[in-house]
Amino acid sequence: MVNASSLLRHLLLDPLNSLRVGSNSSIASTVTMSWLNIPPSSHFSMANIPFGIISTGEDSTPRPAIAIGDYALDLKAFAAGGGFKASPEIAKNEAVFSSTTLNDFAALGRPLHRSVREYLQATLSADTKHPELLKDNDGLRKQALLPRAEVRNHLPMAIGDYTDFYAGKNHAYNVGVLFRGPANALQPNYLHLPVAYHGRASSVVVSGTPLRRPWGQVLKDPKAEPKVPALAPADKLDLELEMGMFVCRENGLGSPVPVDEAEQHIFGYVLMNDWSARDLQAWEYVPLGPFTAKNLGTSISAWVVLADAMNDCKGAGIANETPLLPYLRESKKDNVLDVNLEVDIITAAGHKTTISRTNSRNLLWSWPQMIAHHSISGCNLRPGDLFGSGTISGTTPDSHGSILEQTEGGKVAIKLEGGEERKFLQDGDSLVIRGWAGKEGALVGFGEVSGTILPAHPLF
Amino acid sequence: MVNASSLLRHLLLDPLNSLRVGSNSSIASTVTMSWLNIPPSSHFSMANIPFGIISTGEDSTPRPAIAIGDYALDLKAFAAGGGFKASPEIAKNEAVFSSTTLNDFAALGRPLHRSVREYLQATLSADTKHPELLKDNDGLRKQALLPRAEVRNHLPMAIGDYTDFYAGKNHAYNVGVLFRGPANALQPNYLHLPVAYHGRASSVVVSGTPLRRPWGQVLKDPKAEPKVPALAPADKLDLELEMGMFVCRENGLGSPVPVDEAEQHIFGYVLMNDWSARDLQAWEYVPLGPFTAKNLGTSISAWVVLADAMNDCKGAGIANETPLLPYLRESKKDNVLDVNLEVDIITAAGHKTTISRTNSRNLLWSWPQMIAHHSISGCNLRPGDLFGSGTISGTTPDSHGSILEQTEGGKVAIKLEGGEERKFLQDGDSLVIRGWAGKEGALVGFGEVSGTILPAHPLF
Repeated sequence: MVNASSLLRHLLLDPLNSLRVGSNSSIASTVTMSWLNIPPSSHFSMANIPFGIISTGEDSTPRPAIAIGDYALDLKAFAAGGGFKASPEIAKNEAVFSSTTLNDFAALGRPLHRSVREYLQATLSADTKHPELLKDNDGLRKQALLPRAEVRNHLPMAIGDYTDFYAGKNHAYNVGVLFRGPANALQPNYLHLPVAYHGRASSVVVSGTPLRRPWGQVLKDPKAEPKVPALAPADKLDLELEMGMFVCRENGLGSPVPVDEAEQHIFGYVLMNDWSARDLQAWEYVPLGPFTAKNLGTSISAWVVLADAMNDCKGAGIANETPLLPYLRESKKDNVLDVNLEVDIITAAGHKTTISRTNSRNLLWSWPQMIAHHSISGCNLRPGDLFGSGTISGTTPDSHGSILEQTEGGKVAIKLEGGEERKFLQDGDSLVIRGWAGKEGALVGFGEVSGTILPAHPLF
Repeated sequence: MVNASSLLRHLLLDPLNSLRVGSNSSIASTVTMSWLNIPPSSHFSMANIPFGIISTGEDSTPRPAIAIGDYALDLKAFAAGGGFKASPEIAKNEAVFSSTTLNDFAALGRPLHRSVREYLQATLSADTKHPELLKDNDGLRKQALLPRAEVRNHLPMAIGDYTDFYAGKNHAYNVGVLFRGPANALQPNYLHLPVAYHGRASSVVVSGTPLRRPWGQVLKDPKAEPKVPALAPADKLDLELEMGMFVCRENGLGSPVPVDEAEQHIFGYVLMNDWSARDLQAWEYVPLGPFTAKNLGTSISAWVVLADAMNDCKGAGIANETPLLPYLRESKKDNVLDVNLEVDIITAAGHKTTISRTNSRNLLWSWPQMIAHHSISGCNLRPGDLFGSGTISGTTPDSHGSILEQTEGGKVAIKLEGGEERKFLQDGDSLVIRGWAGKEGALVGFGEVSGTILPAHPLF
């Protein structure tokens, strides 16, 4: 497929007047200039080409699109207008762009994702050999190239199963100290396998969806005996800063995925906020793990950054001196995503404070290792399955990925702009997580994942 | 809708020559005789009418059917042949019977399920007012009424999320003793809320699907320090005898379901075997719960017994003296399913032994309580979601729902026919779980859920 892709690029770009960013930079891929005006600070540069699901005021049917600069390119309209006619390989599969999710596109596999991404890069290139497809096609540009500010984003995938890993070692340690004390903070299995649990797929929502403060069982005085819970709106509502990964290839039930083949099962990546009610969690999580504390909702960013776009945005994760069992040993070194992450809190009063700056390299395991472990017992993964990385925390409070850690369990308030402070989230608070790799002019960005906390409903 | 249903029954049965079983029996519903020859021992009596998805050698497209005696009535063929024409209400919705799952039918809601079940009971009744629909319609009978032995069953629902509860108190205690000792066997939350965790939806399979012994991380000597796992096929493969419940009604994200309305969210019930690798589980389950130990597969019976069919097959569950929070207090008392359960093991040598006899009343919580708790934090449930009850164990070894309990963690072998014995499952072992309510001639049965353990694959 590399040859086919090269051929495709050659067909569409002539001369191939591309800008190669130095191979030691975090973006080593070939980046071309576009005939579109793309701000250098845009997350959605020509080096990115992330996929999402959009609708518009004129057409409420959700449909696939890519983000490019300040635009969304409606792929259903682009396909219908003959946009893919220069590639018979893509054209014969273009029905996937009439779907209401990206699952069908994902299931076509990485070589096809690569072809489509490179085809779109070439079509959007200043040097496109086929300006008649879009650049000089006023009608199709008007129909398919939509201002991003005017489109509505939907959940990009129909999510079959959602698995939340716990690969943020700093977070696992910090939270372990709070829940079980320093001696038992990390369990004996932690360095040997990517700890994970099943999350709730139905309550995964796209960025911008407001979420209600949940009701649940809480211990008003956790030290009182006997322990008698009350029913109350959660007091200790928190974020969890994570990366998400979507699966594109099915392995059969009973068929583990070898770690060095696992990259082929990755469709792409999103930002994730796995909202958590810490008071619900502390009471309910023994012995089978978190449940209602997480079911209130999990937010993901709208645009799936393809695995290919992140090929060169990787580095060493958190070091693990523990000898790994063979099924977790990767041939590829330094294979953890290198994504800069920031968390803003915006209060109801409008005060905006960046409360955390960190990087996704604060993970103990790579996505291929997580896939290898998830499937080692024969579990079948399917296109559209979502993995969460686990909360990503650095080693200092201002790089922690949860308020629980920043406030040491609600003891030390976080100082916000305007003289406000928080020990946990309040009604009306909005959170915005941003993430990006690469350099200005060639950013591979995730945009943001945001959400606002609504007050708890009156109960019944 | 009760009036509409009564009217429907009246239209189709004239005279309504029905047999009312005493209201103190476990089947108090109205049971009619059929023009079909239904063996009195059949699980699929006129009092049942369970729904499933079938295909045949002639037509490999999965489609809805009911089980009746030794037959499956193909509802796609029945609808196409005008079978529903005596009910405009059903006929206008009959497209759901062309679906490849029962999700669309389920989503129509319980009043419609009731209408369809009663319509089919009336059509199959010896006294049907409309013999031209099926009884005297040789062509349609031949097309739609298929010997059950000749149909293939498929998974009845597309499962969105699968949640496994832990409501079998005897099991929770027994396993708690083995994993954590008697002092911590039941955690402080256990009597206050229905403990649950998210399971894996993708690996739920229909009865009869063979499953591979899983690979995974195990501690060969759990007491050795430091703890260093090995990669090996699981040695301690086990069953978990459970009931399953399918959801039919969506509640919105952020909208808890009141416990007394929860019955309207229940589509029906199945038998479940939640296969478990105990050696994988013991090592991996802290702190976030079981993961690869359960991902190898979960088997369910093929025919979904509608909620209505079980209306009168309920009784008291395990007593709970703990005062419950209001959202878990049901107006209806004794609301736990009353299903007789048996587990057979059939060895590769062909020896068959019934290793457990118990009843689903060995549960601490009713399904409505589980729904109320699951949704209290705002979690949205969707048609096709599957709940497991948790392992159902009585108080004696011969009524335990797992081998782990029967063998006290693998210490005491179970004696089988033919001089064989088991501490855990061996390759080639088959398990068959049966379940039924009601009395001979009017059984509301679940048929069986079976599965055979295949040897572990060579790894890579």
